[in-house]
Amino acid sequence: MELVYKGKTKDVYQDEKGEFVLYFKDDMTGKDGVFDPGENQVGLTVEGSGRAGLRMSSHLFEKINAAGIPTHYVDADVDARTMKVKKITVFGEGLEVICRFKAVGSFIRRYGNYIEEGADLPAYVEMTLKDDERGDPLINEAALEALNILKPDEYQEVADLTVRVSELIKDELADKGLDLYDIKLEFGRDAETGKVLLIDELSGGNMRVFKDGESVDPLKIGDYLLNG
Amino acid sequence: MELVYKGKTKDVYQDEKGEFVLYFKDDMTGKDGVFDPGENQVGLTVEGSGRAGLRMSSHLFEKINAAGIPTHYVDADVDARTMKVKKITVFGEGLEVICRFKAVGSFIRRYGNYIEEGADLPAYVEMTLKDDERGDPLINEAALEALNILKPDEYQEVADLTVRVSELIKDELADKGLDLYDIKLEFGRDAETGKVLLIDELSGGNMRVFKDGESVDPLKIGDYLLNG
Repeated sequence: MELVYKGKTKDVYQDEKGEFVLYFKDDMTGKDGVFDPGENQVGLTVEGSGRAGLRMSSHLFEKINAAGIPTHYVDADVDARTMKVKKITVFGEGLEVICRFKAVGSFIRRYGNYIEEGADLPAYVEMTLKDDERGDPLINEAALEALNILKPDEYQEVADLTVRVSELIKDELADKGLDLYDIKLEFGRDAETGKVLLIDELSGGNMRVFKDGESVDPLKIGDYLLNG
Repeated sequence: MELVYKGKTKDVYQDEKGEFVLYFKDDMTGKDGVFDPGENQVGLTVEGSGRAGLRMSSHLFEKINAAGIPTHYVDADVDARTMKVKKITVFGEGLEVICRFKAVGSFIRRYGNYIEEGADLPAYVEMTLKDDERGDPLINEAALEALNILKPDEYQEVADLTVRVSELIKDELADKGLDLYDIKLEFGRDAETGKVLLIDELSGGNMRVFKDGESVDPLKIGDYLLNG
């Protein structure tokens, strides 16, 4: 297999048949040895975390594919820590799509004048640019079109898919007594067809989850989800 | 006349017939004696600035009313520095609507990874909450609805009116050789009918204007517009 791209927590390979394979590393984003999904640098290495992230991602991608929602996921080999995926192109230099069921975090920092912390939100969707230097700025539909990051109608398509995926994951977690507050997804276009696909991984670091009113460690969300 | 509300640059009165009247003061927002339309405190007093702001606002509101775009403007008495307006309610605690024809200022600070400073934008519209403490945060359509600041369809209505008003003002300025880069508008609902109206004032401090590639002092935009 040939290394195509070396990421912070995943490497991308192309295999002999030309298919794309993600390799899940044990490196995690964070700072000074503490895991922080919002950090943009590798902060620690936790043995088994790559496999755990892949197991959770694989479980959820299979549910999402089964629901008829288009994703980049083909299959996974958890022991080998690899996920076979479709080749995709990202939106611009990367777009993050957040779905919020509770008003916490940056939503409260921005709009706390209008809502109590922890209040319910109706699967609210917002998008931010991946841009460390500029603090991952919030961006609206008109700007995404003006900057040629999204084509007309893609904002609505991505937002609708985000709500479907987030509701599905929320329900999966609820079955295990877990409460999804918010989740960060990524989408791209199928490199062959241009169709919008859910991409990246779906692990604990991409979501804020509570159980009985207490925050759940992102590294433990997968255990709850897979083992109950 | 009875004082209803004391603002930074305008006071609001209700007259004997119950009609609402804005009184344009010579106080201007700024800091340390320097005019800054982005500041949220009175920074200086310039004799004649209230009258100049009213004259420019009145000129533009009459053009906008004549174009069939609904506004709060009834009429003005420039010598008395008063503008008679319809009674309105604001969106939430105030919503600012920005229309951009050029990528400058905070647009570049947020999205400079995707566009050159000064590049053209297609009458791009964005909305921010009036909230000094939180830095007037950008807000998207879904959040404005989730927070009950706008009703469904009002975002599109406000955005469409913003483009019409901004294009009209851009054309008025272009007739005098001035180039409108961006403009900040405010809207509210008619207190009686609920209809969306353009409100506030339309003076130099609400817009960024260039002439022959040089920034025009906000205090001088009205002179160019009215006297050529």
